[in-house]
Amino acid sequence: MSLKPAAEGLRTHLFHIIFESNTPAAKSFDIALIVAILAGTAAIMLDSVPAYHQRFAALFGYVEWTLTVVFTLELAARIYCLERPSLYLKSFYGLVDIVAILPAWLVLIIPGSQGLVIVRLLRVLRIFRILRLMEFVGEAQLLMDAIRRSIRQILLFFVSILMVVTLFAALMYTIEPAEAGFSSIPRSVYWAIVSMTTVGYGDIVPVTALGQAITVLLMLLGYSIIAVPTGVFSAQVIRSIRADRYSDEACPGCGHDRHEKGAYYCLLCGTWLDEYSEDPRQAEEVEDDAPSPKG
Amino acid sequence: MSLKPAAEGLRTHLFHIIFESNTPAAKSFDIALIVAILAGTAAIMLDSVPAYHQRFAALFGYVEWTLTVVFTLELAARIYCLERPSLYLKSFYGLVDIVAILPAWLVLIIPGSQGLVIVRLLRVLRIFRILRLMEFVGEAQLLMDAIRRSIRQILLFFVSILMVVTLFAALMYTIEPAEAGFSSIPRSVYWAIVSMTTVGYGDIVPVTALGQAITVLLMLLGYSIIAVPTGVFSAQVIRSIRADRYSDEACPGCGHDRHEKGAYYCLLCGTWLDEYSEDPRQAEEVEDDAPSPKG
Amino acid sequence: MSLKPAAEGLRTHLFHIIFESNTPAAKSFDIALIVAILAGTAAIMLDSVPAYHQRFAALFGYVEWTLTVVFTLELAARIYCLERPSLYLKSFYGLVDIVAILPAWLVLIIPGSQGLVIVRLLRVLRIFRILRLMEFVGEAQLLMDAIRRSIRQILLFFVSILMVVTLFAALMYTIEPAEAGFSSIPRSVYWAIVSMTTVGYGDIVPVTALGQAITVLLMLLGYSIIAVPTGVFSAQVIRSIRADRYSDEACPGCGHDRHEKGAYYCLLCGTWLDEYSEDPRQAEEVEDDAPSPKG
Amino acid sequence: MSLKPAAEGLRTHLFHIIFESNTPAAKSFDIALIVAILAGTAAIMLDSVPAYHQRFAALFGYVEWTLTVVFTLELAARIYCLERPSLYLKSFYGLVDIVAILPAWLVLIIPGSQGLVIVRLLRVLRIFRILRLMEFVGEAQLLMDAIRRSIRQILLFFVSILMVVTLFAALMYTIEPAEAGFSSIPRSVYWAIVSMTTVGYGDIVPVTALGQAITVLLMLLGYSIIAVPTGVFSAQVIRSIRADRYSDEACPGCGHDRHEKGAYYCLLCGTWLDEYSEDPRQAEEVEDDAPSPKG
Repeated sequence: MSLKPAAEGLRTHLFHIIFESNTPAAKSFDIALIVAILAGTAAIMLDSVPAYHQRFAALFGYVEWTLTVVFTLELAARIYCLERPSLYLKSFYGLVDIVAILPAWLVLIIPGSQGLVIVRLLRVLRIFRILRLMEFVGEAQLLMDAIRRSIRQILLFFVSILMVVTLFAALMYTIEPAEAGFSSIPRSVYWAIVSMTTVGYGDIVPVTALGQAITVLLMLLGYSIIAVPTGVFSAQVIRSIRADRYSDEACPGCGHDRHEKGAYYCLLCGTWLDEYSEDPRQAEEVEDDAPSPKG
Repeated sequence: MSLKPAAEGLRTHLFHIIFESNTPAAKSFDIALIVAILAGTAAIMLDSVPAYHQRFAALFGYVEWTLTVVFTLELAARIYCLERPSLYLKSFYGLVDIVAILPAWLVLIIPGSQGLVIVRLLRVLRIFRILRLMEFVGEAQLLMDAIRRSIRQILLFFVSILMVVTLFAALMYTIEPAEAGFSSIPRSVYWAIVSMTTVGYGDIVPVTALGQAITVLLMLLGYSIIAVPTGVFSAQVIRSIRADRYSDEACPGCGHDRHEKGAYYCLLCGTWLDEYSEDPRQAEEVEDDAPSPKG
Repeated sequence: MSLKPAAEGLRTHLFHIIFESNTPAAKSFDIALIVAILAGTAAIMLDSVPAYHQRFAALFGYVEWTLTVVFTLELAARIYCLERPSLYLKSFYGLVDIVAILPAWLVLIIPGSQGLVIVRLLRVLRIFRILRLMEFVGEAQLLMDAIRRSIRQILLFFVSILMVVTLFAALMYTIEPAEAGFSSIPRSVYWAIVSMTTVGYGDIVPVTALGQAITVLLMLLGYSIIAVPTGVFSAQVIRSIRADRYSDEACPGCGHDRHEKGAYYCLLCGTWLDEYSEDPRQAEEVEDDAPSPKG
Repeated sequence: MSLKPAAEGLRTHLFHIIFESNTPAAKSFDIALIVAILAGTAAIMLDSVPAYHQRFAALFGYVEWTLTVVFTLELAARIYCLERPSLYLKSFYGLVDIVAILPAWLVLIIPGSQGLVIVRLLRVLRIFRILRLMEFVGEAQLLMDAIRRSIRQILLFFVSILMVVTLFAALMYTIEPAEAGFSSIPRSVYWAIVSMTTVGYGDIVPVTALGQAITVLLMLLGYSIIAVPTGVFSAQVIRSIRADRYSDEACPGCGHDRHEKGAYYCLLCGTWLDEYSEDPRQAEEVEDDAPSPKG
């Protein structure tokens, strides 16, 4: 009986530590989690280096298992302190949590294949949640706003690019010899994207004069149209930043409608801007006037 | 006799489906067309891969022929439901439609050459029309506006770049040995553009110390002047987006129709713009005038 | 005696054709000049290709000599129709004109060396003058304004980059083996700039794990700080574009100071903006009032 | 006794020359220092070229020792003319000063190792101090402001990029054969960053069709998300430049000191801002009040 409230207190306490980030305990928890995730990621990455695998395989296995146990306990704690854990488990971060520990446990049943490496690394996505909890909320919000508003233009831009790339690739496939690497249209598309994005590996390069002339056009195109997504996105970021500098409401006095947020008086005519409260100056004047009838 | 109006109704009905995009039937038609175009493009591209060509040539040929018949029927339907089909056939999209089906039919007469591949792929340009019909009108409009307004500056920029590239190329042709790849000025121009656009294939690289020093200048130039088209285009996108800031309504006095939103008086003739309220100045004047008759 | 004014008329006539660009004759002259310059440039470039040189050397020589004579006559005409030709010859475009014809004449005395190729190509710079005369004045002005205003920030940016590049280069010179191409600090600087500008030829690449880790830092730096000149320049272009949209003067009525150029009335209070003339509306009202005393 | 003030005068004099930059003597000192630093840097860099080292080792050693002595004397002068030299020596520029001369002196004790080259080159950082003293203060301030305000968004952007890169690298490590260079996850991460930043050395390239398809995604991602830091930074530079739009003067009523230029009334307390003229509202009120005593 007396245990119930204590448990309830523990759950609330845990909830604050695990899901929030404004107490010292919660912050320490977040940092510990980031360290654990980074350590786990480093172990997986280094384990893939043959030289390190031979010498430190046992250590990496130990790190991996410790972290799997820790993350399993953490997930258990998350489930424990939530009222509707099933909703959480179906959310994006819930799925990432499960994915982060499942592969390790699966290896106990099915001997681990290399292919699971990528699944285990999905764990790094958990860092996003922690950043979201911490101080980057405003920044992420602003970037997301700008991306959401520019996504359609940028999509349209990509569809256009893919068409251009397809036509250039088909042209080069027709012109260049197969020995130079242009052995099929898909390979030519790969080359065209390598060239237009200005990556330029050099594994496939044009060898004929005509092919090089067409390549010059493609490169100049790629070099200059990067301006399109950049321009669109810049404009949207500027809008996002400005949006939280100015209020939308117009001055009831002169109608000027670009007042900085936090402005109380119109910068052009000095009218009190807040229609839901009284101008303190007016109130003052009334007070000032108040003694005058006495006189 | 009674058939005429029915045919008329069919034509109107077809017109709405084929040329518009705001009914469920028209939307399904657009999506089906996009799927058909993408399938045809995929078939052409995969057919160019030797391994797939050997195994699936018959399938790709079947897809190609089916689509040719489908696109021919579609073009026939377009011609049927337009009042002046010849105008359409001479328009950009009409030409693309013809080009999209002609090569396949030509192969019946002249056995198909690989060179036609690029012509058949021109079909992807049809996707633009569909996108234009669908929801990307506003986005495309905005991008086009910004491109149109910045095109002259960007052209000027390109002319300047080509001059700089020519001079750098001639310089490197003089300095670097022909064995390093700088065997002629046109090849040096190709190298200079590969370097300045930051593509950097590495098929031609400077080998002398002086050549490398000049290359450093060229690369730093290329790296920084990308700012020019990007800056110009960003500025124009911002202006396009801000154009929303202008209200659509025309001045009742002089008809000027680009007033900033929030404007109360026409900037050209000083007329009060808001038709739903009275001009405070007028009101004032009336008040001012009011006592005068009394006097 | 009667010849003098005729000669004067010819000089004036020539001056309008050669130095201006607003009559049909002057425009034809500009276009002919651009064609001649491009033809000459093409001849020089193609002459450098061994295969073409063998077959068309005579043709290229003919083009070169014809153009040399044409440009010499043109320069003579320029000198003839100017009042102070020595000033012109010392100006930038005058020097380019001399440089464009001198090498060909020098060859008559000193048998031509390949090194003069670059000097003869300097002729392309003459295209700038023609563009300046033609319709690109406004565009060039705007770009120049923006470049001039951002040049100091971009210079500061380059000095910073060169310091960073020097330190990275020295670090890589210490870490990487000479066989990988890092055989001296100047070569490492070349590599560092190839990497940081994202050109990436691949002629020198890091081979040690530590070197690759440092390269990753350098590439991420190069990838992101391109934002600096782009941002600075974008901001300046935006300012240039905006500068010719708004007038500087404030409304004498309410003080609002961002009126579009061409505005006659304040958009906030409807006051007549031009202090040097009378508000036509006032005048009208006076007229309207005029009959009132009669009543 | 009489020596003290003279010494004091010398110290003040030295201080103005060394630490400031607004007298001709101070400017000459700054320029001499930049020349000395650049000469020293050039000597170190050229000394690393084997061919030059053999022939000019003595000259480079002479330059190095002369500069070491000069910089030592300069540091002594700095210490001499400061009141609290220990504070200076612990500052960033103080440390750079020590680092710039220490290695050369250390070589007298411990025979110099090549590793010290990078330490000696740290000397170039001193150029920053001189630039700061000279005319670039405003420019640097503006860039720094913009960088400081965008740093959080750009950090968030980099964390996201590193996660994406890690996942792509693990995926390619699983797909591509080790022979193509994808022999471990860290190497794949190196490749992924080389590709995403559009550097594209070409030392590691995908060889399987699936790997190339994934590479296409990575390159398109890298090509387009460069828009993110550029957009954020552009927006911040624009804001910095626009900050000029604010007047410096504080409100006489409440002390608020960021009013847009052209503001007449304080946006916080509605006080009339222009101290050289009268508030038209007050004037009006006075007029309004004027008749009241009469009544």
